Amino acid sequence: MSRLVMKFGGTSVADLDKIANAASKVAQEVKNGHEVIVIVSAMSGKTNELVSWVKETKEDYDQAEYDSVVSSGENITSGLMALRLQEMGVPARSWQGWQVPVQATGHHESARIDAIPTDNLNKSFESGHKVAVIAGFQGVMDDGRIATLGRGGSDTTAVAFAAAVNAVRCDIYTDVDGIYTTDPRIVSEARKLNNISYEEMLELASLGAKVLQTRSVELARSYKIPLRVLSSFEEDISENIGTMVCQEKDIMENIKAVKGVAYSRDEAKLTLVSVADRPGVAAAIFVPLADAGVNVDMIVQNISEEGRTDMTFSCPVDQVIRAKKALTEAMSADLINYKELIADTLVAKISIVGNGMRSHAGVAAQMFEVLANEGVNIRVITTSEIKVSVLVDRKYMELAVRALHDAFELENA
Amino acid sequence: MSRLVMKFGGTSVADLDKIANAASKVAQEVKNGHEVIVIVSAMSGKTNELVSWVKETKEDYDQAEYDSVVSSGENITSGLMALRLQEMGVPARSWQGWQVPVQATGHHESARIDAIPTDNLNKSFESGHKVAVIAGFQGVMDDGRIATLGRGGSDTTAVAFAAAVNAVRCDIYTDVDGIYTTDPRIVSEARKLNNISYEEMLELASLGAKVLQTRSVELARSYKIPLRVLSSFEEDISENIGTMVCQEKDIMENIKAVKGVAYSRDEAKLTLVSVADRPGVAAAIFVPLADAGVNVDMIVQNISEEGRTDMTFSCPVDQVIRAKKALTEAMSADLINYKELIADTLVAKISIVGNGMRSHAGVAAQMFEVLANEGVNIRVITTSEIKVSVLVDRKYMELAVRALHDAFELENA
Repeated sequence: MSRLVMKFGGTSVADLDKIANAASKVAQEVKNGHEVIVIVSAMSGKTNELVSWVKETKEDYDQAEYDSVVSSGENITSGLMALRLQEMGVPARSWQGWQVPVQATGHHESARIDAIPTDNLNKSFESGHKVAVIAGFQGVMDDGRIATLGRGGSDTTAVAFAAAVNAVRCDIYTDVDGIYTTDPRIVSEARKLNNISYEEMLELASLGAKVLQTRSVELARSYKIPLRVLSSFEEDISENIGTMVCQEKDIMENIKAVKGVAYSRDEAKLTLVSVADRPGVAAAIFVPLADAGVNVDMIVQNISEEGRTDMTFSCPVDQVIRAKKALTEAMSADLINYKELIADTLVAKISIVGNGMRSHAGVAAQMFEVLANEGVNIRVITTSEIKVSVLVDRKYMELAVRALHDAFELENA
Repeated sequence: MSRLVMKFGGTSVADLDKIANAASKVAQEVKNGHEVIVIVSAMSGKTNELVSWVKETKEDYDQAEYDSVVSSGENITSGLMALRLQEMGVPARSWQGWQVPVQATGHHESARIDAIPTDNLNKSFESGHKVAVIAGFQGVMDDGRIATLGRGGSDTTAVAFAAAVNAVRCDIYTDVDGIYTTDPRIVSEARKLNNISYEEMLELASLGAKVLQTRSVELARSYKIPLRVLSSFEEDISENIGTMVCQEKDIMENIKAVKGVAYSRDEAKLTLVSVADRPGVAAAIFVPLADAGVNVDMIVQNISEEGRTDMTFSCPVDQVIRAKKALTEAMSADLINYKELIADTLVAKISIVGNGMRSHAGVAAQMFEVLANEGVNIRVITTSEIKVSVLVDRKYMELAVRALHDAFELENA
C-alpha cells in the first residue's frame, strides 16, 4: 500500500477546530488509498508559552530540560489529532518521538535525525491503523533524553519520515497555498508556481521565502522525495493543487530563465577600506566574525591600490554592532589592518533565481539593465549558477522587485 | 547516602513562583544531606485544560491517547522544577515516567505501578545529580505506551519511589499543614495531629479527610514507609513539622481511644422493606448495584418478620437514582422481591476513629450517649475494630461532630 506523509504546521493545528480541519484532509487521503504518516507541530502559541516558562525559570537554561519541556507541545497535538481521526472513524494512533523511535544526535535544541527504524510503525499499520500521528520536531538521544531538532525541525521530520517509509510524496500543509514568483504583498501579479526544482527552492528559501526550511529541502533532494506545499485552509487537496518541489527533470514547463524574484529587506553592507592584502587576510577577517555569531552572506573583494584591498560583506542589519566590535577587536589585536570601516545599514538584497539561467545567456546583464533603467544603483553583486543577487538602497527595494518581476514576465506561466 | 522522597501536588506547583518555592524546600533537604527524589503533579488547572481538550475532541475517547495527552502536564512541571533547582545551584534533572522507567500495568487512565527499576536513577545520582525530578501520575506499559495512574496517582508514585529507593521518609507537600482531629471549618478547636497510624489514616481517608489517597497509604503501610503530610506554604520543614503517618508501634502518645472525628455530608440511606430472606439475597441485591457503579458503603440487615428481612445501605446521594433503577430492574427480572424501596437523601455519616478503641471498652456506647444527649437520632450504625460510624439526619451533622470532638477531648494533645 502506498504511503503518504502529511505535515501540518502550528497555524494549521492552532485550535481544536483547525485540528479537525486538518484531520479531515488526512481522512480524505486514507480514502484515496494511502497509509498516512502525519507530522504535527505544537498548537500555535504553545511553544512560545513553554519557551517563556523555561527562560523565566533559568535564563541560561539546561538545553536537555528545555527540550523535555518544549517537546510537550507537539505531544499534545499528536494525541488530539489521533483522537479526532478516531472520531471520524479512521483507525489512528499517536507517536511521541521516543516511541517510534526517532533517533537523534548532535546537540540538544538543534539535534539532527540520525535514523528512523520503521519496525514499530510497520507493526502498527499491519495491526490495522491507517494513520500514524507523529509529534514533530523531536527525537530521542542515545542516552534516552528527549532532543528537539533545529529550526524548521517539523519540516525535516516530515521529509525524514517520507524517506524512511519510502513515501510517494511529502505534503507540507501551511498557511499559504504554494510558492510564488515573488511576494504577492509587493507584486500583486505574483503567480503561484506549479513546480519548482529543489535547487531553485533552496535558493529562494535561503533568500527569505520562508515557506520551507532549507534543511528539509536538502534532505528531500538527497532522497528524491517529491515535496508539495499547499494550504490547509483550502478545500481541494487533489494532486494538481499547491506547488510541487521536485527534480528538475520532472518539470516540463521549464522554459523561462528566471523562476522567481526574492528579497531580503533588513541587510547591511560593511566595507573594510584599504586592508593590507596578504595571504590569509580573508580568514583573519571572517573567522572573528563567525566566532561573534555574525551571519555573513555576500562577500566581495576589490583591488584598490598596490598591496591594499577593499573588502565588502553583507549581514543582517541587527548584527552590525556585533560585527563592528569583532573587527575593531581584531584590529586592536593586530590580526588585521584597515584604514576605515564603513557600514551602510540602509540596503536590501534582491535576487533572481532560475535553473534556466544555466542555458540562458545574458540574464544577469538583463537584470542590471532593468535596474539601471529604473535609476536603481547596484552596490554589490554576487552570482551563482542559478542565481544573481544584488544589494541596492533599501528605499528602491519594492520598485526593483516589481520591475524585475515585470521584465522577466513572471506573471505569465 | 540517605534518600528522601518529596511530593508536591498541583497547588504547590501552580505557577513559576510556587515551583521556585517548592524547589527551595528541595534545596534545603539536599543541604541536610539527602539525595532527593521529587515527584511533581501538573501545574494546577493544566490537567483540566488537557482533559477538556481530549473530551471536546472525542467524547468516548481512546484512553491510551488520553494518557498520552494528559501526562504532558506533569512532564512540563518536572522540567521546570529541574531548571529551577539548577538555577539555585542544585544538580538536578527531570525524568518522564518512561525514562525511569516506571513500569505500569492494568488499564489506561487507571494503571497501577508494577515495578520501578532503579538502575538509571542510581547512575544519575552516581554521576553527581543530587535530585531526580519525576513526572508523577504516569508510567509506561509493556507495549511502550504511556499510562496515567488512577485517582491520587501522584501520591502513589511518591510512595512507590520511596519503597523502590528505600527512602528514609516520603514527604507529601500539600495546601494543609497536616491531619487534623476533625475539619477545622466545623470545629475551631480542631487540633493538628503529630502522628497517626496507617490504619487510622486509612479510616479517615476513606471517610472524607481527602489529604492522602487511600492507595498510597496502603502502599506505605505495606513497605513501612514513614509518610509525612505538611504544607508547602510554611517556611519550617524540620522533622517535627506536619503530621507523620507511621506504624502504630512508633507512636508514643497513643493514650486516647479516639484520634479523630470524620464526616461525609452527602450520603443517602436506602431501605428495601420486607425482602424475601433466602440464601443469596444479599448478592442478588448488591451485584446489580455494583454493576451499575453504585458505591455502597454501610450495609445493615434486620430481621423484620418470618422469612422476610429489611436491608438498609448507604451510598453517595448523587447515586440514588442509579441505585433505584438497578433495584427496580432486578425486581422486574424476578431476581429479588421486596415490598417497598425507601430512600432518605438527607443523611450524613459521622465516624470516630482511633487505634485506642482496641483496648478501650465502651467507646461506641459513649458515642451514642453523646449523640442522644444532643437529641441526635441515629439511623444506622456500623463498627470496625478502630472505627464507629453512624448515619444521622444531615441537619445535625455539624452539631454532632462538635459534640463528639468535645466529649472525647480531642482539642487537647
